[in-house]
Formats: sequence, C-alpha cells, structure tokens
Amino acid sequence: MSKILKACLIVIGDEILSGRTKDANINYLALWLGDKGIDLKEVRIIPDDEDVIVETINQCRPKWDYIFTTGGIGPTHDDITAASVARAFGVPIIQDPEAVQMLAKKIGGSPHLSETRLKMAEVPQGSHLIINPISGAPGFQMGNLYTLAGIPAVMQGMLDSLQERIGSGVPVKSKALYLFEGESNYAHILESLENKYDSLSVGSYPAIMDGKVGASFVIRSRNDKELLAAYDELKSYLQDQKTKFFEGDWGEV
Amino acid sequence: MSKILKACLIVIGDEILSGRTKDANINYLALWLGDKGIDLKEVRIIPDDEDVIVETINQCRPKWDYIFTTGGIGPTHDDITAASVARAFGVPIIQDPEAVQMLAKKIGGSPHLSETRLKMAEVPQGSHLIINPISGAPGFQMGNLYTLAGIPAVMQGMLDSLQERIGSGVPVKSKALYLFEGESNYAHILESLENKYDSLSVGSYPAIMDGKVGASFVIRSRNDKELLAAYDELKSYLQDQKTKFFEGDWGEV
Repeated sequence: MSKILKACLIVIGDEILSGRTKDANINYLALWLGDKGIDLKEVRIIPDDEDVIVETINQCRPKWDYIFTTGGIGPTHDDITAASVARAFGVPIIQDPEAVQMLAKKIGGSPHLSETRLKMAEVPQGSHLIINPISGAPGFQMGNLYTLAGIPAVMQGMLDSLQERIGSGVPVKSKALYLFEGESNYAHILESLENKYDSLSVGSYPAIMDGKVGASFVIRSRNDKELLAAYDELKSYLQDQKTKFFEGDWGEV
Repeated sequence: MSKILKACLIVIGDEILSGRTKDANINYLALWLGDKGIDLKEVRIIPDDEDVIVETINQCRPKWDYIFTTGGIGPTHDDITAASVARAFGVPIIQDPEAVQMLAKKIGGSPHLSETRLKMAEVPQGSHLIINPISGAPGFQMGNLYTLAGIPAVMQGMLDSLQERIGSGVPVKSKALYLFEGESNYAHILESLENKYDSLSVGSYPAIMDGKVGASFVIRSRNDKELLAAYDELKSYLQDQKTKFFEGDWGEV
C-alpha cells in the first residue's frame, strides 16, 4: 500500500479558547480529509499570539504532509496569521498583485479598497494564493502549510478551491453497530478483532441518549476485505450471544 | 494583580480526528474555566496512541497550572489514558479500593463487577480520584493533571465535583457590540483602544448570518474600569461616525 498522507490543523483564535465561539472547522476538515483518504492526526488550538503561532507552525511543519491553519487573516489588528507564517518561514510579507485584483473584483477599487482592506492582500513572499469564492480575500499556501479563513462558510469555500491541489489516498471505510448495553461485556471480542486484522482499528463509544446507556462499536479500515470479515465476525458473535443490536452508528457521544 | 492561572486541554480520541464525533467538551471547559478566572491557553486533539499521549502530557505538564484530559478512561481496549498517564509520570498503575467501591455502588458487586469493568478502577499510583456522579467510574488527578471522561454529561459531572479543588482568579469580563458592515472601516479605532489600555484585548469577529455581512467587536479585560472606559470610547466613536450599531455580541461566527 502507498504511504498514508497525514495532516494537522492549527486553529488560531482567542475566541475559541475563551469559549465565545464554538469551533465548527475541526469536524468539517476532519470529514473533508477523510473523504480524500488523508488522516487528520493532530489539532492544536492556540491564541492570537505571534510567538505561539510561529512556534506551533514550526513544530508541526516537519511532522505532517499537510498543515492547515484557520483564523486570523482579516483586516484588523488581531489578524496576525500572515505575518506569523512569514516569520515562521523566514520570508518577508508582500502585497500580492493578484490578491489585490481578487479584492477589487469583490469589493470594488479605490476608495473601497482602503489601506486597511489591502492588508488582506498581504501574504508571505513565495506563497500561492487560495481562492476565496465567498468574500474575495484569499488564503495562501506556503510549502506544506495551507492558511484558511476562520469563518466556516469562507473556510469551506477555500477548501472547495483546493480540491485539485491536495493529494489523496485510499479512504478509510467504516462499519458500525450499536446496542443498548454497557460496552464492558464486549471488550474482549473488540480487542480480539483489532488484534486479528492488521489494518483494523476498532472503537467502542459509549453514550447516554434519552437516559439510555448504550454503545456504538465502530470498525475502521482501508482494507475492504478485512473490514467486512471483521464486521461479520462481530455480528456472528453477538447473534451467538443472543445480544440485540442495530446496524449503523448510534451517532456522536 | 495576582498571577493569572492558565490551563490546557488534551482531547484524546480517534473519533474526533476521524470526524465521527463532534467534540462538545472544549467549549464547555473553556466557559467553565472562564467563570473561575482561569485562562484556557492551549487545546490539543490527539489520537488513541500511547506514545503520543505520553509525549503530549509531558510537553504540556510543565507549561501550565492545570492540564485536563478528556476521553479514553472506559473499560475497552481503546481506553488507554490511565496507562498513558502512569507512564508519563513514571509510576505503576494500581487498582484503587475506593474506585472499586464507587463502581460497586453504581453497578452492583460480583458478578456485575467483572474483570473488564474493574479496569475502570485502575489509576496511576499516587493519584486522587475525581467523583463521577453520572456513571460511577471515577476520573483522577495526578499532580496538575486532571483526567476526565469523554462523554459530555460525565465530563460535566466530574467538573462539578472538582469545583472546590481547582483554584480561581479574577474572571475576564467582556463588553460587545455589533454592526452590519465590514470590520475594516473600524480597524484603526479597535487597534488604538487595545494599545491605549494595558489590560484590554479587543477582538473583531466578522460573520455572515442570513446572508448579511457584519462584525462583533468584543472587548475583554480583568479591569472593570478600563473595560467600561474603552467600551464607552468605542460607542462614542461610532456615534460620532453616525454608525448604526447594536449592543451585545452577535454570536458565534
């Protein structure tokens, strides 16, 4: 099997850490990457602090195939991601003529294109723009780092425009079933399945919904044959035990 | 002013990184800490991988006053947080008699208290239990590390029982207003306010809601006097500019 591509997300935003804003981008990116067969391996949420952003970027860059950032690319004083990325890569920040065109097309030329708004056309030297189909101001790619907006609709639009630029691998598929019992009675069969098949990961997710205790057992693999074999084995085991179960994933815990 | 207490959260869970589950604990903990005047400074989301958990814990421990973890403390093979914490602290894992009592009280003694279930009574040697008022199986505190369940209702119940054990400081207060215009026209006044008052942080959060573009300006401070002075200054500025604005926070972006 070819090398599995791995990614990391750095969420930049005081507003997430203070609790003002609930992040909506982590889950979206996780599923977007999953569809492309790329594993999201790490997420960091950090404050609007240039030193922290630079340090985090430089810790994550060598570890993963793709690094994404969200947040901090607007026109105000708290938007410091572009400057931080430039410092992390040791390059100056420049006004990109193509980015100026993108802004002008969306919001009109002078006087709409004020000095403040032009800040959104400043990117690290050597970066490639990422089209923003929603509000004009582009993101940018610098090496293996992809800098996206924090507003979910804009972040999602930028990911759309990256579809062809990001590689892909074999997606992980999953099969799941759930039952209304504690997970502990089934710990041994889950563990033995995970040990039996190399490609498999088996998750047990207890949940309390409407006052009922239950659990989903989720089998994940890039190998269809092993996935189905393991799933059939789990079902047979539960049938032998006369355990009532339902196919599908009970949902989020 | 006394030292500001700072915290970090480590979310342990393949299911968050794969996108199966949307995390609900980050925002809850951020607000819970905020009420106590503790700043959440960093969040990491990492996989169910013992080496990664150990390394992450040992990176975060010396940096912050409080480290919280969520997830991975159940009875199945993928619940490896207790073993990982023990390894990070270099202590053995032991069966805690008090934890056994807590489990027995909730689920009954033998045969209910199976070997698998007793795994939930295993904690690192030297740790202090954290009561779980929902489902019995306790969390544990080891030094400045607080290990909580991943199920939101259980995690929240454990935080309730930690109320008296976690210190507190001066909470950050905030004042906010919003307007239906792009944020860029106000970048200079926001920046000048942040620069004028030492204790202040000023955030500008653009949003698109029901197709309208707008922004919330949020002023945050531990100093009530500076907070109100800055907020009044911002309102006066907008009134002078004849800008229509609304008091309060427009909400999440």
